[in-house]
Amino acid sequence: MNALDYFHARLEATVSPMDYLRLAQAEPEKYFLIDVRNGPEHVRSVTIKDAAIIPQQELHERLHEIPKDKEIIVYCWDVWCNTAVKVAAFLLERGYKVKELSGGIAAWKEMNFPVTDSSLDVEPSDTCGC
Amino acid sequence: MNALDYFHARLEATVSPMDYLRLAQAEPEKYFLIDVRNGPEHVRSVTIKDAAIIPQQELHERLHEIPKDKEIIVYCWDVWCNTAVKVAAFLLERGYKVKELSGGIAAWKEMNFPVTDSSLDVEPSDTCGC
Amino acid sequence: MNALDYFHARLEATVSPMDYLRLAQAEPEKYFLIDVRNGPEHVRSVTIKDAAIIPQQELHERLHEIPKDKEIIVYCWDVWCNTAVKVAAFLLERGYKVKELSGGIAAWKEMNFPVTDSSLDVEPSDTCGC
Repeated sequence: MNALDYFHARLEATVSPMDYLRLAQAEPEKYFLIDVRNGPEHVRSVTIKDAAIIPQQELHERLHEIPKDKEIIVYCWDVWCNTAVKVAAFLLERGYKVKELSGGIAAWKEMNFPVTDSSLDVEPSDTCGC
Repeated sequence: MNALDYFHARLEATVSPMDYLRLAQAEPEKYFLIDVRNGPEHVRSVTIKDAAIIPQQELHERLHEIPKDKEIIVYCWDVWCNTAVKVAAFLLERGYKVKELSGGIAAWKEMNFPVTDSSLDVEPSDTCGC
Repeated sequence: MNALDYFHARLEATVSPMDYLRLAQAEPEKYFLIDVRNGPEHVRSVTIKDAAIIPQQELHERLHEIPKDKEIIVYCWDVWCNTAVKVAAFLLERGYKVKELSGGIAAWKEMNFPVTDSSLDVEPSDTCGC
């Protein structure tokens, strides 16, 4: 494999935050974004807006939630987490069309792109009036 | 492709900030560094010292500015941006010798390596005496 | 090479901080972790707990310290440093079983995983009582 093969493979396998935001804004119905992070829910309460939350550990039993006719975009924590790569390989082997969102939630937040914070729904400070 | 092929491809396709700094200091005339970031100029006013500024979107009409006899090094924002990868693939397909600078401007700044800040040229605070 | 090949290669060539921590806690005797960073010792005084310190520049003369019967895990500074990739390729070519720890010491520290700080041994503030 030479450098060109490597670059082509990266472009085929991944999508950058900027590119995904633009693509999904233009054709939102074409993509299905999945947050595949494992771990305690409170540490992953901030998720990318409109992402489905399917932790990698629940993937087998929740496979029916993933549409076969959309382009699947998966992400985990950061450039260095492998969870999204594992899920991408698993889904590609089963005939899904899949890309990894480069940089995960870390890059997305660094770009100040839209997120959802589920912890805000239950924060006492939001509801108690104090 | 096995792990060794993967590592060889990465080494052929990329150069780290440390390695590039050392190589360019030893043989500056051998390399041609390009900042290929798109986006508003004010958010990319800090660039790597001595880099040519050719946004990816202007690449087609400015291709003649890129020398065929040098090693081309391209960079964008960070590890997770794909713009440099797109440009690298485009140039490799046209016979240029190209590597991506790993980590882009983010890694370069983290290493405190030399940069140029074009915004300083026009900052009122530099000139108005206030 | 298609996207699936790329993902498989990444999974074969790298291990994430989370996965390595879990694997090494379950079977510590199975792995041999090496910090291969070059550069002045004082800037790399914080290392991953239980890592052997073998800078890439000393690898040739210290190769006998690396066991052939363990899985070798190598790391350097961050996602964008290539030193660990160079060492991984070198060792794989010589028949070792090797993976790169994704994200290097930067990702490991970001996860608050256990480290050793050799500079603490000699910090005056630890010993002078002031």
